[in-house]
Parts: sequence; structure tokens; C-alpha cells
Amino acid sequence: MNKTSRIDRHPIMTNAGLEPTQRVRARDEFGEPRELNIAGEHPLTIKVDEAEVVTLMTLGTYPEKLALGYLRNQRLIDNINEIAEVRVDWDRETVDVFTTHGDGIIDLHEKIAQRTVTSGCGQGTIFSCTLDKLYDTQLPRVEIYQSTIYALLNTINSYNEIYRAAGAVHGCALCEDSRILYFVEDVGRHNATDTIAGEMWLEDIGGNDKIFYTTGRLTSEIVMKAAHMGVPILISRSGITHMGLELAQDLGVTMIARAKGRHFLVYNSENTILYDAIPQPKTILAGSQDS
Amino acid sequence: MNKTSRIDRHPIMTNAGLEPTQRVRARDEFGEPRELNIAGEHPLTIKVDEAEVVTLMTLGTYPEKLALGYLRNQRLIDNINEIAEVRVDWDRETVDVFTTHGDGIIDLHEKIAQRTVTSGCGQGTIFSCTLDKLYDTQLPRVEIYQSTIYALLNTINSYNEIYRAAGAVHGCALCEDSRILYFVEDVGRHNATDTIAGEMWLEDIGGNDKIFYTTGRLTSEIVMKAAHMGVPILISRSGITHMGLELAQDLGVTMIARAKGRHFLVYNSENTILYDAIPQPKTILAGSQDS
Repeated sequence: MNKTSRIDRHPIMTNAGLEPTQRVRARDEFGEPRELNIAGEHPLTIKVDEAEVVTLMTLGTYPEKLALGYLRNQRLIDNINEIAEVRVDWDRETVDVFTTHGDGIIDLHEKIAQRTVTSGCGQGTIFSCTLDKLYDTQLPRVEIYQSTIYALLNTINSYNEIYRAAGAVHGCALCEDSRILYFVEDVGRHNATDTIAGEMWLEDIGGNDKIFYTTGRLTSEIVMKAAHMGVPILISRSGITHMGLELAQDLGVTMIARAKGRHFLVYNSENTILYDAIPQPKTILAGSQDS
Repeated sequence: MNKTSRIDRHPIMTNAGLEPTQRVRARDEFGEPRELNIAGEHPLTIKVDEAEVVTLMTLGTYPEKLALGYLRNQRLIDNINEIAEVRVDWDRETVDVFTTHGDGIIDLHEKIAQRTVTSGCGQGTIFSCTLDKLYDTQLPRVEIYQSTIYALLNTINSYNEIYRAAGAVHGCALCEDSRILYFVEDVGRHNATDTIAGEMWLEDIGGNDKIFYTTGRLTSEIVMKAAHMGVPILISRSGITHMGLELAQDLGVTMIARAKGRHFLVYNSENTILYDAIPQPKTILAGSQDS
């Protein structure tokens, strides 16, 4: 794995992950009672040296890494060494991030005041500093074998535990070739992405030689986060939006969508795909069915 | 349909809906070029008398109604008669809402300052006034026939045009019995919900005798919006979260999830379902397969 920058020491962190699912009672179409698991959803307010930044709605399994990844992907804090402590308190529904400066990131209050609040099935906030720094990102041109895509999709199938137990979550994975380094599920695909960013930041993992997989759609905000994480190849089980595509074109991100079974569609940087495992053409398959 | 309040006159509105999909080129798993439709995604900043409220990421098909519904569901403006004009300008990516007061809702700036920015696959913002007014909502206990649920699911199938053409959108519908009054798709399910709220506000339609259908998940924020719209019955093709369930229990919302074909699960107010169309039990079906 490529490393990004030296970490002097890890921040002091709580380990306050919640159980992802809860058992509840429902009634089915036969009128019969059923015991089922549903996904948790918890508000979590991120504060940096007492200054309130955002409230996320999260599954709550990795709140410390989620907070770190959020601050990282929004480019609100540049260096992990600036962070002294990450303290989650579910009674207050708050994660307190304390910096080594003690009195907060000098211009954080100014950045918060200038934020644009975004919505939709979106991430909630874009800080102007997030956008300013986006085009500083240089992503390398990385090739990927079709056989690697298939091997990765095959591996992913065994991962999405919470989705299979309870539904209502999205899964995201950081991959190196067909190996899955981290897999995170959350009620918001943005949170799952940010949690992986937090893990990468803490463990000093670079994104340039990685692949980012998500069950969710490739909208502009997900492409933006992946670029901030330095990952040049995105694979999604779902579709894409036009703004996501335009951003991928600007930043040089390879966009592989509708990836499921043998099928996929490459929407940008299609020349980075090395077609070494082309399925039997449909016409031949149809012929073999006839025989 | 039940009516909510008298509308003196409709606001002056632009009619600036965009085409929902765009034609782009991709390459499939055979390495073959494909022409495909993908969903649009556009930033749209809502301003009220020049004061910036939020930036939504939207498909852009009904921007005027989306803006109105957003303001309504956030309880930022109480009366449609306070709105003089809704003017969308895509070059500036802005929808300007002008009030009859001329200088804006008196305490709007204060409300904006007090907002909580939420995130996740969430709605982006909750204003404290939104929450303050939530528990003022009194929803009636309304019964629904199982046969109505099935008839409605059957009708819905023919509606989701954009999803079938391009994917990457959620659909929401306002229904009266099994009739669909409005069907809206958007890249964010919150936007589709708000657009329906805008339509209801403009046309003076109450929600107490309606059913709200969505392809998306029933999270806390969707339950909250439905309650603000006065709709007591929610049907979703997807799952629910625990916080969505708790809110539905507090507000008396009937939650019907995983509704697809003959299957559904009722998570709250199960005694409002009138089981008049129970499918053949599985054991008998299995028996008939044997015969």
C-alpha cells in the first residue's frame, strides 16, 4: 500500500460503536407476527473544540472514524497530527474532536460560516474549502483488468452482512486489486464513504492504487469524496448521475456502474479497462441454448 | 379530497422544469459502445427574499414545486398566501422566492442561523422550527384494506418512467385509495417528497385521507415529512430504520415496508390493516406445485 504522510501518533479515541441492528416485531401479508432486524439510525453531532460542524444520521458502528473521515473529506482539517482526541458520547449524541491547538482550527469558524448546505439524497454540506481543494487533486491513470472487476464483485457478495440482516443500508469497500481492505455499511452511503476515509487517514493509507466500491449511486458528491481520497477507480452496483459523470471527466476518475454478475457499464476513462475476461457473446449463448 | 386552508391566489411562478435524462455513451462488459440515458443532477439554491436557505441537488423537473414544498415541510413559511413569486434561474442555479412582505419572513434569518445541518443519506437540514412544530401534528387513525395496498402497488408499476430509462432516482407518490394523484421522481427521495408537498400546498390538498408511497427507505426524515404533510399511511418498497419506526410510533403513522408483489411488512399501527386479500398460504402453494 502506498503511504501518504507521516503520522506522529494516533489520536486518543473512544471505541463507542453501536450494534447495527435492532430486533422488532412486524406483521406480514398473512397477518402473521414476525420478528425482524432493522437498521439503527442515530443523530451524531460533530464538534471540533466545541464548535458545532454538522449532525449526521448514522448507523453508529464506527462513529470515531466517521467523524475523522467527514472532517478529512470536507478538507476542514489537513493533518491528522492536529487531532489530539476523538470522544463519542451517545447520551449527548455528540462526537467531540479536540485539536492539539486547544482552541480549534484557527479558521474553522470562518469555514463553517461559509458552508453551503446541500440536500437531496446528498451529503448535507459542502464547505467552500472542500471545493477549493478539489481541483488540487491529481489522480493517476490506473488500468484495471476485467477479471479483477469480476473477482472483486465475487468477493463483495459475502460482505454485506447488515444489508442482508436488516436492509436499509448502503455498503462501501476500499479494495486493492480484488482484495477488500475495509467494508463499511451505513444508513447513508456518504457516511460509509467518510468512515473509509477516516480509516485511511488513521492508518496512513493512500488511495492512488485502490478501487472504491459502493452499492449506492455515483452522484457528484460521491465522486468528489473519492477524488479527495485519491482513489481513481469507482465501481457501483447502481447507476450514475450526469453531474457525477461530468466531475469524473474533469478529475480523470474511471466510473464503472451497474456492476453485478458479469454486467457493467464504463462511463468514463473506458480505455483504462483491460478486457481480459469478456463473457461469451449473447448470440453464442443463445446458440448454445438451442443445441 | 379534503382541503386545508383557503388560497387567495397562486404565486406567480416560472415553469423551468428540465429534461430529466441525458443521453451519454458508455462501454459494456463486451467492450462494445452503448448509448444510454442517465439522470440529471443539478444544484439549486433556494433563496427567500435574497436570504440563502439551502442548496438542493435535484433532477430539476419541478423546481418551483420543490422549493415551495421544501419551505413548507421545513415549516419556514406557514401560509402559501405569504408567497408572491417563485422564480427559477438555472444560469444562476437559484430559485428566488419572494414574499408578499417584501423584506422576507420576519424571523427567517434567525431560523436559518439556528438550523442543524444533517447529513447521511439525509435531507441536509433540520431547522429547529421544523422539530418544534412536528408534535403539533395530529394524524387521524385511518384503516386501509389489503386489497387497496395490492391495487396501488399494481398501479405504481406503470409509473416510474425515469427510473426505468436511467435509474439513479427514487419515486414518490401521493395516493387516494389505489389512485395515484401525483408521482414524482428525483435523484433524492427527500426532493421527490418535498415536490409532492409543494403540489399539495399549491392545490390546497390535505393529507389525512391520503397514502404516501416511496421506493426509498422510511428513515426518520421521511416519516417527519409525511407527518408534516398530514399523511397517516406510508408504503415503501424498501426497508425502515429504527429511528423512523420510533417516530412513526410517536406520531401514529402506519408503516408498511418491503411492499412488492404480494409481500409487505407492517411495522406500526398494524391494527389499521384490514386483511381482505390474504394470499394463499405458502404451504398450499408448495402443495399445488407438487400436484
